[in-house]
Amino acid sequence: MSDARRVRLRAGGRESRLAARAHPSGPIVAYLTRKLPPFEVLGEEGLETIERNAETILEEIGIDFRDDAEALALWKDAGATVDGERVRFPRGLCRSLIQRSAPAEFVQHARNPARSVRIGGPHTVLAPAYGSPFIRNLDDGRRYATLEDFRNLVKLTYLSPALHHSGGTVCEPVDVAVNKRHLDMIYSHIRYSDKPFMGSVTAPERAEDTVALARLVFGDDFVSENPVTLNLVNANSPMVWDGTMLGALKVYARSGQAVIVAPFVLAGAMSPVTVAGASAQILAEALAGMAFAQLVRPGTPVVFGAFASSISMQSGAPTFGTPEPQLVLYVTAALARRLGVPFRSGGGLCASKIPDAQAAYESANTLQHAMLAGVNFMLHTAGWLEGGLTVGYEKFILDADQAGMLRVLADGVDMSANGQAMAAIREVGPGAHFLGCTHTQANFETAFYRSSVADNNSFEQWEADGSQDAAKRANAIWKRMLAEYEPPAIDPGVDEALRDYIARRKTEQPDTSY
Amino acid sequence: MSDARRVRLRAGGRESRLAARAHPSGPIVAYLTRKLPPFEVLGEEGLETIERNAETILEEIGIDFRDDAEALALWKDAGATVDGERVRFPRGLCRSLIQRSAPAEFVQHARNPARSVRIGGPHTVLAPAYGSPFIRNLDDGRRYATLEDFRNLVKLTYLSPALHHSGGTVCEPVDVAVNKRHLDMIYSHIRYSDKPFMGSVTAPERAEDTVALARLVFGDDFVSENPVTLNLVNANSPMVWDGTMLGALKVYARSGQAVIVAPFVLAGAMSPVTVAGASAQILAEALAGMAFAQLVRPGTPVVFGAFASSISMQSGAPTFGTPEPQLVLYVTAALARRLGVPFRSGGGLCASKIPDAQAAYESANTLQHAMLAGVNFMLHTAGWLEGGLTVGYEKFILDADQAGMLRVLADGVDMSANGQAMAAIREVGPGAHFLGCTHTQANFETAFYRSSVADNNSFEQWEADGSQDAAKRANAIWKRMLAEYEPPAIDPGVDEALRDYIARRKTEQPDTSY
Repeated sequence: MSDARRVRLRAGGRESRLAARAHPSGPIVAYLTRKLPPFEVLGEEGLETIERNAETILEEIGIDFRDDAEALALWKDAGATVDGERVRFPRGLCRSLIQRSAPAEFVQHARNPARSVRIGGPHTVLAPAYGSPFIRNLDDGRRYATLEDFRNLVKLTYLSPALHHSGGTVCEPVDVAVNKRHLDMIYSHIRYSDKPFMGSVTAPERAEDTVALARLVFGDDFVSENPVTLNLVNANSPMVWDGTMLGALKVYARSGQAVIVAPFVLAGAMSPVTVAGASAQILAEALAGMAFAQLVRPGTPVVFGAFASSISMQSGAPTFGTPEPQLVLYVTAALARRLGVPFRSGGGLCASKIPDAQAAYESANTLQHAMLAGVNFMLHTAGWLEGGLTVGYEKFILDADQAGMLRVLADGVDMSANGQAMAAIREVGPGAHFLGCTHTQANFETAFYRSSVADNNSFEQWEADGSQDAAKRANAIWKRMLAEYEPPAIDPGVDEALRDYIARRKTEQPDTSY
Repeated sequence: MSDARRVRLRAGGRESRLAARAHPSGPIVAYLTRKLPPFEVLGEEGLETIERNAETILEEIGIDFRDDAEALALWKDAGATVDGERVRFPRGLCRSLIQRSAPAEFVQHARNPARSVRIGGPHTVLAPAYGSPFIRNLDDGRRYATLEDFRNLVKLTYLSPALHHSGGTVCEPVDVAVNKRHLDMIYSHIRYSDKPFMGSVTAPERAEDTVALARLVFGDDFVSENPVTLNLVNANSPMVWDGTMLGALKVYARSGQAVIVAPFVLAGAMSPVTVAGASAQILAEALAGMAFAQLVRPGTPVVFGAFASSISMQSGAPTFGTPEPQLVLYVTAALARRLGVPFRSGGGLCASKIPDAQAAYESANTLQHAMLAGVNFMLHTAGWLEGGLTVGYEKFILDADQAGMLRVLADGVDMSANGQAMAAIREVGPGAHFLGCTHTQANFETAFYRSSVADNNSFEQWEADGSQDAAKRANAIWKRMLAEYEPPAIDPGVDEALRDYIARRKTEQPDTSY
């Protein structure tokens, strides 16, 4: 165990007290455990057909593994047929590689152990939006994101009890050089939050930096045996894994870190337009990627990711919140369960440029279905606008409120005697009201989800309060949150080690824009 | 068969041609038939417990039947214990009365037979908002509704392919005397639409007027044996059926018309705060109401209605789109299926005053779950604002667009060879795109739901188009629809008979405000 790790663990007492002060809202709910069963849109026969089709894709069409000779060699050794960069797989090979060694669920450790998350099974972990070069808020409108925005979003996520995970590229800090910004991003996640976070995947050496920084926090030994980062590796659909993503995947797998293996499909462009067709292709791509991770290091925690949207057949633009991708989500979630690995999908996805009714319908349509589908890790839960090009401050607040509702939904129906409430019905009787009865008084505090943003007042009161729309109220909320933010405690020795590493790495190389 | 009915049927040819002209958008989809199974949030044991609790409420606490001596007599004859206005029921009495004679599903006939709807089983019928005294649009803001608004909403519903039903009190036309406005409302539904509609329930004699007008359209014999109106009878929760509602129920039941028997619950005020408690009470109230309809006339088509919302425990104001009422919705839908009657719930429910992000999240949260719950009749699908106090023109357009998406969701996954799309995946292969492939070209038109309101363009294009929010776009859409509206054909003889009846009834009585 490294010094840093030892110091961190020793500091638990003071850390907890400080953490408690910054979180006046009660105990930490590190992740959700769904009591509702997942909703199934296809029966056994339909799912088997899609699995059979995925094996046919893997066997007959194959998947390209590009710019990575080592990958091709690993596949050849494993029994696949390699033809140039095209890899074809005997039926069942990928599935058996995964089922032999990939865990069905795993813990991603946070530097605050109370915030470690369990990914897989009946558990759901919610994380903010990822990857936007732009931000939007009511004050500035839309503009390029900066490192300050990045920090703000990390802080807002830290302060949002419904979000369990700090996420990764919560926005692109474009005021920092491309080859250095990952250092500032990782530092921000560690320093301004104590929730688990995601690493850099844009180049193998940036993945190495991520792991190096994590080791300073958690200790070398701990990191090599425990996922402390979760890393998003996207396929280049259709049916291509490219060298950059494979490079990052290999670094993380060899370092004992967890990988989301995620086909990213705009159906109609990158997959067939149909639900069953897109699902079979996604399964084939994910099987190849997850099996590859097992070849690199057996036991690598992998998450089957599926990001699917439809496109406008007039303009080719991606569309969100429409029914077809929800069906893909349900199907691929079921396929992941049958395979026995955790599943990532969903989010507050929308095409709208602003936090208006379009944004909200679209986002709700994905958020609610993702929860019923039994998603284990939901990236993009809060903040998404404009197909992911922009992250919105107000949208973040609105989505995070919705995320809180998902927890209550997932809790299902309380069938205890208190839940059945027969005493209340007897006490009140016909024609009276329940407002003051014993049962209502006893359950007052927790009876109903309390939205932080919704205005449920009378029209007259709402008008007297300035006739604000939801975005306006959300604007006041994020400003108040940032004003009241206090960082979680960190061991000064760890902090110094992180800063030293980052300073050294920044001086070692010139700025680049790629 | 009355003359009117005969004339109507004869006029089919010309009517169809005119109807076709007014509906350029393709064949009529009269109602949905869900291919998805309903989602169940409780297992057998939980549902049985709630059923047992409902029987306990009926047996031990009882239900008040107020201001209706005939109802009390009917219950006494049926074997219930009557104590003042309180009726207590032997366990299983209500259930057996319903299961003995109420149909599991039924057809509500429209004057255009192609628009008749099937209510129950795997079918879902979507209807607009009901009951608002106010309207809102971007031009006028919020103001009292008028008969012109009523006609406009009937016309917009007629022109909305995703809405199958003309609804009832789509707004309260407050510029017409309370005791006469039902005549203008029924006439508007018949004249400006040819979709099925709902009757008046605010007084028994208004129910009689509804039936009389329906007879002029459909003929006396047809009406006495076939539901041509669907009528919303609300309980006065907790556990009270009042004389007005019972009076309307009796008129419709005796006239062979269909009745929605609907507990209306703001949990915490009119029921316990818990899901299982509210559901047991709702079931008890609905059982008593639906069984009463069978006592009045065995075989009366009844729909188990459940309108449940939570309240703000701070202010007592109703809240919408929160998770607890969605759970009640799933539970009561399952209870209706087990009982064997159609189920009504759901809608684009919201507390927001305006069509903003709050309105959209809240509405989507109910619309999507209502479809997955297997709702058979969804009132309030489009237009609701402000807890039902206001119906919004723009909100109507936005919700109707969402209703269109529900159809695609309900269709589930196409597992045909075309749906599996393996030929497309073979044709395109790794690294290419699907935009121009044979399969995409063949499925181009119907591949994805096309929203009428969403803006999926680039940020730059959206900005060039005026940076409009969804409500602004919806404003332009309803204006264009009303400008292009053409009424469906009606037999002049029927029209004259309707107008004569209404004129006579209006002169027979002075205006009243109750």
